[in-house]
Amino acid sequence: MDLEASPLALPFPDMPAIAGVTLRIARAGYKDWGRCDLTYVEVAEGTTAAGVFTKNVCCSTEVELGREQVKAGTARGLVVNAGNSNAFTGYRGREAVEQIMGQVAENLGCAPSEVFVSSTGVIGVPLPRDKARDGVAAVLDAAPCSWEDAARTISTTDTFPKGALAQAVVDGRTVTLAAIIKGSGMIAPDMATMLGYIFTDATVEPGFLQQMLSAANIDTFNCITIDSDTSTSDTVLAFATGKAGNAPLASFDSPGADAFFAALHDVCRQLAQLVVRDGEGAQKFITIDVTGAVSDESARRIGLAIANSPLVKTAIAGEDANWGRVVMAIGKAGEPADRDKLSIGFGGVWCARDGLPLADYDEAPVAAHLKGLEIDIWVDLGLGSGRATVWTCDLTHGYIAINADYRS
Amino acid sequence: MDLEASPLALPFPDMPAIAGVTLRIARAGYKDWGRCDLTYVEVAEGTTAAGVFTKNVCCSTEVELGREQVKAGTARGLVVNAGNSNAFTGYRGREAVEQIMGQVAENLGCAPSEVFVSSTGVIGVPLPRDKARDGVAAVLDAAPCSWEDAARTISTTDTFPKGALAQAVVDGRTVTLAAIIKGSGMIAPDMATMLGYIFTDATVEPGFLQQMLSAANIDTFNCITIDSDTSTSDTVLAFATGKAGNAPLASFDSPGADAFFAALHDVCRQLAQLVVRDGEGAQKFITIDVTGAVSDESARRIGLAIANSPLVKTAIAGEDANWGRVVMAIGKAGEPADRDKLSIGFGGVWCARDGLPLADYDEAPVAAHLKGLEIDIWVDLGLGSGRATVWTCDLTHGYIAINADYRS
Repeated sequence: MDLEASPLALPFPDMPAIAGVTLRIARAGYKDWGRCDLTYVEVAEGTTAAGVFTKNVCCSTEVELGREQVKAGTARGLVVNAGNSNAFTGYRGREAVEQIMGQVAENLGCAPSEVFVSSTGVIGVPLPRDKARDGVAAVLDAAPCSWEDAARTISTTDTFPKGALAQAVVDGRTVTLAAIIKGSGMIAPDMATMLGYIFTDATVEPGFLQQMLSAANIDTFNCITIDSDTSTSDTVLAFATGKAGNAPLASFDSPGADAFFAALHDVCRQLAQLVVRDGEGAQKFITIDVTGAVSDESARRIGLAIANSPLVKTAIAGEDANWGRVVMAIGKAGEPADRDKLSIGFGGVWCARDGLPLADYDEAPVAAHLKGLEIDIWVDLGLGSGRATVWTCDLTHGYIAINADYRS
Repeated sequence: MDLEASPLALPFPDMPAIAGVTLRIARAGYKDWGRCDLTYVEVAEGTTAAGVFTKNVCCSTEVELGREQVKAGTARGLVVNAGNSNAFTGYRGREAVEQIMGQVAENLGCAPSEVFVSSTGVIGVPLPRDKARDGVAAVLDAAPCSWEDAARTISTTDTFPKGALAQAVVDGRTVTLAAIIKGSGMIAPDMATMLGYIFTDATVEPGFLQQMLSAANIDTFNCITIDSDTSTSDTVLAFATGKAGNAPLASFDSPGADAFFAALHDVCRQLAQLVVRDGEGAQKFITIDVTGAVSDESARRIGLAIANSPLVKTAIAGEDANWGRVVMAIGKAGEPADRDKLSIGFGGVWCARDGLPLADYDEAPVAAHLKGLEIDIWVDLGLGSGRATVWTCDLTHGYIAINADYRS
């Protein structure tokens, strides 16, 4: 299926090489796509790794293995298969992943457990081992490629390649974070069909890298939703090659750790928002700011209830400032809320305050705001100081067209 | 908006009068609809009442009052306003409801608390008191009407009128239950924008009527979902006039109580399924049977996760037996599940058993089944004896068209 680029697409950033990271792509032919579908990233010896994964109980072999691999916290390679998720494929799927790990490990002279594998695409069809073997052989021989090429190759139904960049000064040295991500449907907190990879030349102890990635995950990847569906394969991995030569970051007490965490968090937020910008059928990028909740977690749940409401999402698609549907979504979240303390606004204009529609509510600026590509919804619960920001997109005919047709 | 009748519509049943129940309709003009929009049901002195209501925290005044009224358990009248839900309207909304209760109570010579009011339609606009006053005055003078007329008058975006009928023999007498319901969007467990009314000539103590209605609610109204959204106004009320003259049903030990409960349960299931058959944009009626869960409640939650998954619903709309999306939905439910014990089938044919796609899976009969109007999904978790059946509909372009355009 050829899809037009999302109207919310951002241009691919100009991204520098990261010392200790080499990208390559090849064609394994998992699907009849006529494009590269296998991405290989070689990382230098001494690279540390961390990851966050889907909470879907029916997760893929790749996710099961990845959870174990990040405990060891070292990496030498990453292989990403596009077109086949290898999920729900039992022992045959597992054999295919182990074959890939072994083949790359032999080439690098490392342990198979230092080779990470991700797969994305249709569920329930074992990854074909012969195609994987030939694909990996080809990619090991391929010339290095650009970030943008790699971003395109890990994609499936994505309509534009997605990259993000940040820098920080640590221990007197500038360290760089470069990242790519794919994903556009089946996206909800706990990671959805989203595969993201963050690479940095900083030196970071693996336990602290994991701590920072898990912390950044809470208010970035876990605050986006496209359709409330959560993929069986979602993964975000971070790799730190240590080539910048800074004194290792080991905890938030290490000099420069705050700056590095800020850069990592920034990259995670950029990546998360890019996924929403490519939400299947998305025509509008929606930011929901929830304040006044009893806790931050309560605010996040309320924000997600709004963001996942089909009636709110279709109202935005229809450019309708239907705050009644927002009230409904708040009420169904199951979190503390008091109808008579609730305030709701669009585009910086309150429509209702303290449980009552505003008598002097001027719909004109709100209507103009709703015609734009970037929609802001404000919700104040009037109960406490809990707050969260959640990002989503509208629900359009495009979503139906993509998902009632897409298959295997 | 003029909508074509759902392809899943059922003809309105031939429903007899219930002794002690008189239906009337009138035009209050809440919206510019050119049809009746106010329904009034007078019930005989001595009528007992019970109700189940939305769990939406931001519920309407009507729901707040209704919860109190059913505690007293007696009724003389019911008024249903269509076109304005009166939800999120503060004290002005409450005054309008109290005005209606007072006006009807004065006419009947009863307490205002014996007059139930429901309202359905746009949220956030106080019910206009002048229109309500004139509408109630007109309806008190109107001639009695049929069940089908009343079913049409309580409707909003419904595409066909919905009624259900059942009978039971209690204490040697045949008692009858006749019911009407409206609702098609914003439907999820905990009652959605669904207004249902059940009337019987049986004699039933109010506490036991409530007990039976609450019990029937669990595996009927709470097992349907259209779009996961839960209205602020949903209500199902049951009224028992006692005109059949049976010895009062007071508990499940009363002779005939089992038979009456079976009939009540049957009516509730019919009503619930009718709502799904009129799901906004629905083209297929989907029955999801979940077995082998660790408990019935776990089975229900898994069934609802499947039924609420936009990716499953769009796959069915696309007539695609995409069991991988069913696996994904099971995994995201957060309930106990083991990928390697999972079995999934469509239309009576297993596609995957014990965590593996079936080698000899014949897609032809499944593809034929998917082309029909009534779709069956089987899920066996292989863990325990918990089971549930959940009903939903597919997600189509029709849903988007209705909800991106519908407003105030």
